[in-house]
Amino acid sequence: MNEINLLVESYKQTKYQLVGNGGRDVQVLKEALREIEGQQESDMYGKGKIIEDFQAKMATYLGKEDAVFFPSGTMAQQIALRIWCDKKGVKKVAYHPLCHLEIHEEDGLKKLHHIKSILLADKNRVIQLEDVLNIEEDIACLLLELPQREIGGQLPEYQTLEAISSYCREKGIRLHLDGARLFEILPYYKKTAAEICNLFDSVYVSFYKGIGGVAGAILAGDKAFTKETKVWKRRYGGDLISLYPYIVSADYYFEQRAHKMKQYYEDAKELASYFNNCHAVSTRPIVPVSNMFHVHFDVPKEKLESILVNIHKGTDIGLTKYLSETSEQTCFYEISIGDRYAEIPKEELNRVFHLLDEGIRSSLE
Amino acid sequence: MNEINLLVESYKQTKYQLVGNGGRDVQVLKEALREIEGQQESDMYGKGKIIEDFQAKMATYLGKEDAVFFPSGTMAQQIALRIWCDKKGVKKVAYHPLCHLEIHEEDGLKKLHHIKSILLADKNRVIQLEDVLNIEEDIACLLLELPQREIGGQLPEYQTLEAISSYCREKGIRLHLDGARLFEILPYYKKTAAEICNLFDSVYVSFYKGIGGVAGAILAGDKAFTKETKVWKRRYGGDLISLYPYIVSADYYFEQRAHKMKQYYEDAKELASYFNNCHAVSTRPIVPVSNMFHVHFDVPKEKLESILVNIHKGTDIGLTKYLSETSEQTCFYEISIGDRYAEIPKEELNRVFHLLDEGIRSSLE
Repeated sequence: MNEINLLVESYKQTKYQLVGNGGRDVQVLKEALREIEGQQESDMYGKGKIIEDFQAKMATYLGKEDAVFFPSGTMAQQIALRIWCDKKGVKKVAYHPLCHLEIHEEDGLKKLHHIKSILLADKNRVIQLEDVLNIEEDIACLLLELPQREIGGQLPEYQTLEAISSYCREKGIRLHLDGARLFEILPYYKKTAAEICNLFDSVYVSFYKGIGGVAGAILAGDKAFTKETKVWKRRYGGDLISLYPYIVSADYYFEQRAHKMKQYYEDAKELASYFNNCHAVSTRPIVPVSNMFHVHFDVPKEKLESILVNIHKGTDIGLTKYLSETSEQTCFYEISIGDRYAEIPKEELNRVFHLLDEGIRSSLE
Repeated sequence: MNEINLLVESYKQTKYQLVGNGGRDVQVLKEALREIEGQQESDMYGKGKIIEDFQAKMATYLGKEDAVFFPSGTMAQQIALRIWCDKKGVKKVAYHPLCHLEIHEEDGLKKLHHIKSILLADKNRVIQLEDVLNIEEDIACLLLELPQREIGGQLPEYQTLEAISSYCREKGIRLHLDGARLFEILPYYKKTAAEICNLFDSVYVSFYKGIGGVAGAILAGDKAFTKETKVWKRRYGGDLISLYPYIVSADYYFEQRAHKMKQYYEDAKELASYFNNCHAVSTRPIVPVSNMFHVHFDVPKEKLESILVNIHKGTDIGLTKYLSETSEQTCFYEISIGDRYAEIPKEELNRVFHLLDEGIRSSLE
């Protein structure tokens, strides 16, 4: 606990950071509100210009008929799956073993909807067409998460997506996109959001990952679908009298950052190569396909923590404020590139990785 | 539609308004944020100083062991009832026929939890001890809404609450308080929030009714209960990465207005008597017991609309922006007193009610 605090504290003192867009503080909201007139009326239970305009904008961007703003992706995605299950009269869906619904939602899908999940693929790789072809049970919906966050943000080939989409349409299986990081993968696929979303029946996107807003999500699909999502949003208690704090910040940071995803992606590839040139360090994927990747260290967590604390103190560059132990001898952490990376002077970056490489080598001697 | 727009438009042009604390616009949030430092860190999925401090403050205020901040009362209350049902192994609860869960939540309680609701009392009056004694089925929880909003904000006598509470404890029935307007009833009962909440096992309060915040709710109870509410909050997708926009405004306006409820209550009684002195007008209740009441008119909606539009234009005082038709000859609207009422010059108020009385008399001739 003490060690972790040292890491957090030393990270907080650094001037530059490798990851993210800066702290999650109240300034994020204040900045988004700065140019909004005080007289701008609140949304009212899902109605009003401020929410309807943003929903229409996102529907167009995603190439869908309609879009609905939700307080969270957890709520949005459970609702999407419930609607597809009800439509088909089948209470089964399929997704990756490390899907957000499976590991981060306290089994909401099961406890609230009694929907059974079928886990596809080995948890260390993404879902392939073969996995879908091999589903033996009748399912209402297949959920694909692009990129697969828990394994470093991996992606299937675009042709695989097309093949899975065709197969699902043929078989009457609805395809839902967990696009929490959809903006972030467009440069790798060299596609527009609408082109990718066209392969899916329903799509969720988040505004506090790469976009860096306060919170909030959009769920998009055809109008029959979104109409039902609004009923469920009310049932969940997500149809708040005012969602505008999240909408205003989602829109503001979408405008600030959606067009920067190519830069973040290039930065991620550069940063990954820095890590991969260090002793006992490798990234996953080796070459990132979005702004994110995981860094794995063949170094015991405690040893690496002291190395990182020293680098934070000696260079003014923050690498991470946490490490997750994967075994007694290994650990990892997640990197998501945002605005901060580009601010770091290159000579400083070279120094950091020289120190990291050296620190690891001498600690393992 | 045209008529309604005229009413809304004429209302928006008035300088003074009888009801509320002012518009629900972005300024409400901006003002609450003004004195918060930009470096103040966000809450993170229910953790962090900004959320924990407010929860602790509300737990103390409500006299409960613990409190949890929720995005909405809809979410908070369904969760409370689900927990009490699970605890007893009985999927039945009882409440008033005009309970929020029964009429405003698209049947979330039933669709998400398969909990059956038993409706107590005639819908035109509040629940009495007798109604509770007469429940024939085994129920897990009884929900009381204080005041009963949909019938003008009526309240049972305090002794009735005490008797119902004792009976429920004796019978192993959990008592839940829908205290969306709890702050507003303290002056009538001459009790502290903690004294009232002591009669209940779980309590929900809202921060955008009399308090006038942006949105958000607190659910309070003992620690075993609140621990479970956090798991359900995660399941619902209510455990947002950042709830601070609502927390900051809840806290700010709680400090601004919680101590003003006595004034609002006195103002409501005064305003109700103004209405009751008009021809073909009566309030419900006749003498308000909180800051709210309903005004019923034995006047056709369209006729009353033109009278109100004329008053709005002629006096600069807004009475209402909507009317609900109750029959071809009658209509009503809801009044909640806030800061705005006290700003109105008394001579102007006399003039308004003189015009209203006269307008109604001549329209009914």
